[in-house]
Amino acid sequence: MDLAGIARRLELEDLYTAYTGCLDSDALERWPEFFTEDCRYRITSAENYEAGMPLGLIYATSKNMLHDRVSALREANIYEPQRYRHIVSGIRITGERDGAFDAEASFVVVRTMQDGAMTLFAAGRYIDRVVRGEGGWRFARKDVVLDSRQIDTLLAIPL
Amino acid sequence: MDLAGIARRLELEDLYTAYTGCLDSDALERWPEFFTEDCRYRITSAENYEAGMPLGLIYATSKNMLHDRVSALREANIYEPQRYRHIVSGIRITGERDGAFDAEASFVVVRTMQDGAMTLFAAGRYIDRVVRGEGGWRFARKDVVLDSRQIDTLLAIPL
Amino acid sequence: MDLAGIARRLELEDLYTAYTGCLDSDALERWPEFFTEDCRYRITSAENYEAGMPLGLIYATSKNMLHDRVSALREANIYEPQRYRHIVSGIRITGERDGAFDAEASFVVVRTMQDGAMTLFAAGRYIDRVVRGEGGWRFARKDVVLDSRQIDTLLAIPL
Repeated sequence: MDLAGIARRLELEDLYTAYTGCLDSDALERWPEFFTEDCRYRITSAENYEAGMPLGLIYATSKNMLHDRVSALREANIYEPQRYRHIVSGIRITGERDGAFDAEASFVVVRTMQDGAMTLFAAGRYIDRVVRGEGGWRFARKDVVLDSRQIDTLLAIPL
Repeated sequence: MDLAGIARRLELEDLYTAYTGCLDSDALERWPEFFTEDCRYRITSAENYEAGMPLGLIYATSKNMLHDRVSALREANIYEPQRYRHIVSGIRITGERDGAFDAEASFVVVRTMQDGAMTLFAAGRYIDRVVRGEGGWRFARKDVVLDSRQIDTLLAIPL
Repeated sequence: MDLAGIARRLELEDLYTAYTGCLDSDALERWPEFFTEDCRYRITSAENYEAGMPLGLIYATSKNMLHDRVSALREANIYEPQRYRHIVSGIRITGERDGAFDAEASFVVVRTMQDGAMTLFAAGRYIDRVVRGEGGWRFARKDVVLDSRQIDTLLAIPL
């Protein structure tokens, strides 16, 4: 592993740290900025992912759709106040094509409700495609693949 | 990111690894050594932290106070035997001033009681100020900001 | 920390990422390949580990025994379908002797059953001895030291 490879790896870790930090601090308005204009973002279950089912619980095909989702969340405001805590592990680059990288990571999310109740909310993998543009690293694709198909129907904050 | 920046980053990760390893192995007598003489250590909730409330569940303003806390814990010995397991993620340097660094990290703690019962005990952030002295990296400030305000009143081992 | 030390550290992280990724994707047939021919693999509790008890819940003294275990698991197929998610933190090299490294890491494992039920399944430490051979890094010894002595008696997938 040479210096460029090491730097790239740590920059990728920084991307995941910034991304999950954005969600955990409820800075949702900044969340779409982690994606390219024509990104694909999806939350799905491992079962559906492995079966090649194209759609998901949440499915967006552009950064604008992500902005719309955040606006809807803020306006509807139907969900109970809650806080996420992402823990990410096993970040790795799995491929490289045309100047973009395939990357994967494992995560768990602990959710804390306003009354203080804390639950293990989600566990799974990020299966991503990242590109480095002018403003730094961005997700061109992000598949959030949940280990469980029992998804909270109030899934509101992005993962 | 240059070689010095990379080395600094990994040294910071090593600091968190050594710090949490000390707590998880119940080596509490060594715990104050991770702090500067005039450190500030605090455990608080995210709500209180964001509201700017100065105090916390635990609040200490010197390394001596940390030593005193450990002595009290060992002498009182009122708490049920338990084991912590810290998982840390998203370590990052957020600022630099006067030779000191602002650093943050996310954590969860799993607690195992003597009978083997295992619970998700805490989740939150470290919001720290670290300095590099003769003996290596030390915490000049450590705010342990818990996501939940439902804190176990028997909170005994430091976080 | 020089470039060689940095590269070694990241390669070690890659080893844990590949190892846990193998288990989490149920690629058990590849699992023994992470070990040397004359490896020792053990799952034990922290209590037994600290008391110096030599045996464990699972104890193997060669790569062939690991292969046998996978074959038995696949043929017996008595356990309910389940998925692991390992989260690893605090990877560190604790010693070096004769070209081999002592390494430790903390982990938690979230288990998801086929119906979607998700539980905090295990927490503990890896206490390992790793060597670098022709095919990359391998475990010469791996002690999986669980914080809890309440182990699921159906413990089926390796940790």
